[in-house]
Amino acid sequence: MKLASLDTGRDGRLVVVTKDLSRQADASAIAPTLQAALDDWDRHAPALRALAERLERGEVPGAPFDPARCAAPLPRAYQWADGSAYVNHVELVRKARGAELPPSFWTDPLMYQGGSDGFLGPRQPIPLADEAWGCDMEGEVVVVTRDVPLGATREQALGAVVLVGLVNDVSLRNLIPNELAKGFGFFQSKPASAFSPVFVTPDELGTAWREGKLHRRLEVFLDGEPFGRADAGVDMTFDFGTLVAHAAKTRSLCAGSIIGSGTVSNRGPDGGPGKPVSAGGAGYSCIAEVRVVETLRDGAPKTPFLKRGNRVRIEMRDDSGASIFGAIDQAVGG
Amino acid sequence: MKLASLDTGRDGRLVVVTKDLSRQADASAIAPTLQAALDDWDRHAPALRALAERLERGEVPGAPFDPARCAAPLPRAYQWADGSAYVNHVELVRKARGAELPPSFWTDPLMYQGGSDGFLGPRQPIPLADEAWGCDMEGEVVVVTRDVPLGATREQALGAVVLVGLVNDVSLRNLIPNELAKGFGFFQSKPASAFSPVFVTPDELGTAWREGKLHRRLEVFLDGEPFGRADAGVDMTFDFGTLVAHAAKTRSLCAGSIIGSGTVSNRGPDGGPGKPVSAGGAGYSCIAEVRVVETLRDGAPKTPFLKRGNRVRIEMRDDSGASIFGAIDQAVGG
Repeated sequence: MKLASLDTGRDGRLVVVTKDLSRQADASAIAPTLQAALDDWDRHAPALRALAERLERGEVPGAPFDPARCAAPLPRAYQWADGSAYVNHVELVRKARGAELPPSFWTDPLMYQGGSDGFLGPRQPIPLADEAWGCDMEGEVVVVTRDVPLGATREQALGAVVLVGLVNDVSLRNLIPNELAKGFGFFQSKPASAFSPVFVTPDELGTAWREGKLHRRLEVFLDGEPFGRADAGVDMTFDFGTLVAHAAKTRSLCAGSIIGSGTVSNRGPDGGPGKPVSAGGAGYSCIAEVRVVETLRDGAPKTPFLKRGNRVRIEMRDDSGASIFGAIDQAVGG
Repeated sequence: MKLASLDTGRDGRLVVVTKDLSRQADASAIAPTLQAALDDWDRHAPALRALAERLERGEVPGAPFDPARCAAPLPRAYQWADGSAYVNHVELVRKARGAELPPSFWTDPLMYQGGSDGFLGPRQPIPLADEAWGCDMEGEVVVVTRDVPLGATREQALGAVVLVGLVNDVSLRNLIPNELAKGFGFFQSKPASAFSPVFVTPDELGTAWREGKLHRRLEVFLDGEPFGRADAGVDMTFDFGTLVAHAAKTRSLCAGSIIGSGTVSNRGPDGGPGKPVSAGGAGYSCIAEVRVVETLRDGAPKTPFLKRGNRVRIEMRDDSGASIFGAIDQAVGG
């Protein structure tokens, strides 16, 4: 089933959405919010699924589904932890600044603790007070878990995944070097992230969801031009089971925890950085990566970071070309 | 007024508590949870305050208040950001490993994004799967905010503080070096924090709450022995207004955001590290600091990190010796 939150109140209003994203039905009689549904998933999921099936069959009236009326499926969450599972991406970024990739990065997941007290809806503009901060998009896949016990194994962790979605993990690149140099990780350099209109249960993904990875291309557009189409199932060094287990090593995770894949990134056929979409490659899911490629090739980056008025679109389609999660489609705002 | 959450359900059940912490009255008819109260503070705070005053005057029956029945005042929160405002402490830790303190650390607050999806109640044991992780307590002051707009000034940020409390920011010291070396900050090294039984409105602190600081000694005990009694109002380089504004520089903060001071730490009279309580000094609010002092003095640390069965107590008293927030009093558990 597919779930969304209408943009009303702090936590939204839960709706189920048809597979083709055309219609919605109010689900607030079952659970007022997605967090409430997740807090008691065993009880609420069957009722939500039954409602979704009746909506699909036209047995409940429903209403047109409009992503512009959506908040993030979890407008605020108790946990947002973002991995960096495409180690290829990490290696590239380091190479551009002349730093070696520690060998442990291939075996020990990199993950940062994100801020989760307010997310952007799929069509809300990215607030950007200062263009000099170097605003970038990062196209990623996320999973949402039920409760995960402290010390969960990879298998337990993967079994706790109940929803899958997309995120634009907005980053302020020019604030990152100073912040990371301080040693405590990201804070100001990671403003509010934006999420896809709907999160879906793994069964909606069919065989594309296997081995803890989502084997579909993540389409990223900048001002309408194709920017990336990397396969999220390729070059993902750590699957979601491993990422969730990493997050739960020393503490339990609350139902509704959102765990991200990190920027989706594919190597080129030669094992090096991939080519731009315009050159037939898989392109990039963030601007930083193309700047790294430009730096390695030309000695300096050429593609600028986001400016006010730029537009970012992130989406994923099934074999028939239908959008699975709906599109994150945001302007960069003032 | 003083507010607590009884340990029932995921978000607790809101009670108001008398100033002397002896009695409580159910407040769930006003707001079921503290988060619900914070989400609509202007509406709920007056009603809660009226109830607290009637409880104080014996006009409502109330019941005995038992910290052992408390969850953390916010059993889970949307935002937990911990500063490191006692730069003295940061300088000491760096000195012990032969590293310089960058001058910017005196002007640009250090802050990490904490995990907020599950906190420990004041009497709940600290789960510790492996003593080799080097478990440490960190005694700190925290504030809870109402909504804070993106880009808030220090004054606006300070005005958004509605509650004050204490935290034991549990840290796994031996996991920190590897985690910080990866560059993305703390994650596994910061398991669930524990909070004081009650959070209080700033007016409960009288003149001890001024200039965005809490001018009271933070009493820390290890296995019943005095370990620290540093004044939280002394050597705090960044006040809470500055810390909250730092957190809100690039994103808004949701009502119920918890912002921490970092480990409370006082210099000695000579400007160097303080002496142990047993030697007449202000002692330390975490084990890491005494280990640093031991390393600087003797070449190696002597005080071990926490082991199962150890007991940590963190409290703050008013001029009459009465506990303001109640005590965090936790065993280290298995």
